[in-house]
Amino acid sequence: MSTPEGSTTPAAPARGPHDLPDVSGLVVGVLGGTGPQGRGLAYRLAKAGQQVVIGSRSAERAQEKADEVGHATGNANCRGADNATTAATSDIVIVAVPWEGHAELLASLRSELAGKIVVDCVNPLGFDKQGAYALKPEEGSAAQQAAALLPDSRVTAAFHHLSAVLLLDQSVDRVEIDVLVLGEERAATDAVQALAERMPGMRGVFAGRLRNAHQVESLVANLISVNRRYKAHAGLRVTDI
Amino acid sequence: MSTPEGSTTPAAPARGPHDLPDVSGLVVGVLGGTGPQGRGLAYRLAKAGQQVVIGSRSAERAQEKADEVGHATGNANCRGADNATTAATSDIVIVAVPWEGHAELLASLRSELAGKIVVDCVNPLGFDKQGAYALKPEEGSAAQQAAALLPDSRVTAAFHHLSAVLLLDQSVDRVEIDVLVLGEERAATDAVQALAERMPGMRGVFAGRLRNAHQVESLVANLISVNRRYKAHAGLRVTDI
Repeated sequence: MSTPEGSTTPAAPARGPHDLPDVSGLVVGVLGGTGPQGRGLAYRLAKAGQQVVIGSRSAERAQEKADEVGHATGNANCRGADNATTAATSDIVIVAVPWEGHAELLASLRSELAGKIVVDCVNPLGFDKQGAYALKPEEGSAAQQAAALLPDSRVTAAFHHLSAVLLLDQSVDRVEIDVLVLGEERAATDAVQALAERMPGMRGVFAGRLRNAHQVESLVANLISVNRRYKAHAGLRVTDI
Repeated sequence: MSTPEGSTTPAAPARGPHDLPDVSGLVVGVLGGTGPQGRGLAYRLAKAGQQVVIGSRSAERAQEKADEVGHATGNANCRGADNATTAATSDIVIVAVPWEGHAELLASLRSELAGKIVVDCVNPLGFDKQGAYALKPEEGSAAQQAAALLPDSRVTAAFHHLSAVLLLDQSVDRVEIDVLVLGEERAATDAVQALAERMPGMRGVFAGRLRNAHQVESLVANLISVNRRYKAHAGLRVTDI
């Protein structure tokens, strides 16, 4: 068919890798939100004006931490709940629990997490006298374990390399880091990249499929070595993009 | 014992993580120096004024490439040799061969490489329709395989994340990247960091022991995903150091 002159439909603008959706209206839950990493992310997201639910085994302890974060950030949309309620009432759910409890918790939340964007930020590591080393989950990575346990969720992996110390330091205004985001589905990884970019200093960078999550998770062992040698809170930037 | 006043030995200055040795007088050999990665490193090192030996199975082909690199850089100390001669006549030996030939070549050069600083920059990767993915060597990583095969050498791992395209692009004056250097022995990793810093734009960063090399090697799979998405030649910078 020919298109009559003057009535052409304007072409949709080409979507570049830096064109990300608006996620400012989404509710973000943080499982394990009372630990340092989860609390750090909750603090930064609340400070950016995101609606945040801090999840914990104990709803009471979660509410305590949510009150603290809400007070520190002036964000009135910061609440606490048990992990199941957190999962059920959030649009994006960050998994920030210790590796030891990872499988058990996720298996128990399969129905609450159905349809949700899940962001795994767990780093399976062991420690001995020589420092940290990578543990290799049977599924390949923590993120792949999450994907196996949550077949009805949109599983991504991100936020592995953030220093909880920097996240929680209220004198730090910007956390200068690139957040590597992995996943199978473009819309989900785009949303997580956009979520990262809500936090000043952070950039969300797509960095591959979940089968390549292990090295991103375990690179934290190297960052721990860097921190020890240079007395730093090291993070990564990706060059040339 | 008390030290009599006035005769104290001056304390050696504290050596910081950024205090690196002068390696400008060392001869650097590149095994697999006729492939893109090895040739790119040889070109950058020659351009920086380093004495370089390009190694290959064929001494003739190696000499051809050495002549090209010497001509392009104006470096008269650039020669070619077979891999065994390259190993025997260099102070620092970079291993830039394909993963498939890695074990066989190193096993054959054990005596030539004895006492030498060996820098493994091999990335064991597989490729399929979905892109690149990490291969897991039995020893844990290519670098650990090198260490197992070369018990008399000082094995380090570095130079994994460099783009051969950028290294070989004569219009590129600076390659802006941090080179993660891993190893067991401080003097060896310091020398390799210093070697990286001979090349404009590069910084050598200590990033742990060889048991944490696998994730550094296989992160190249992620950088390949980044390059595809962003049409880039991605590298890494470590923040806060």
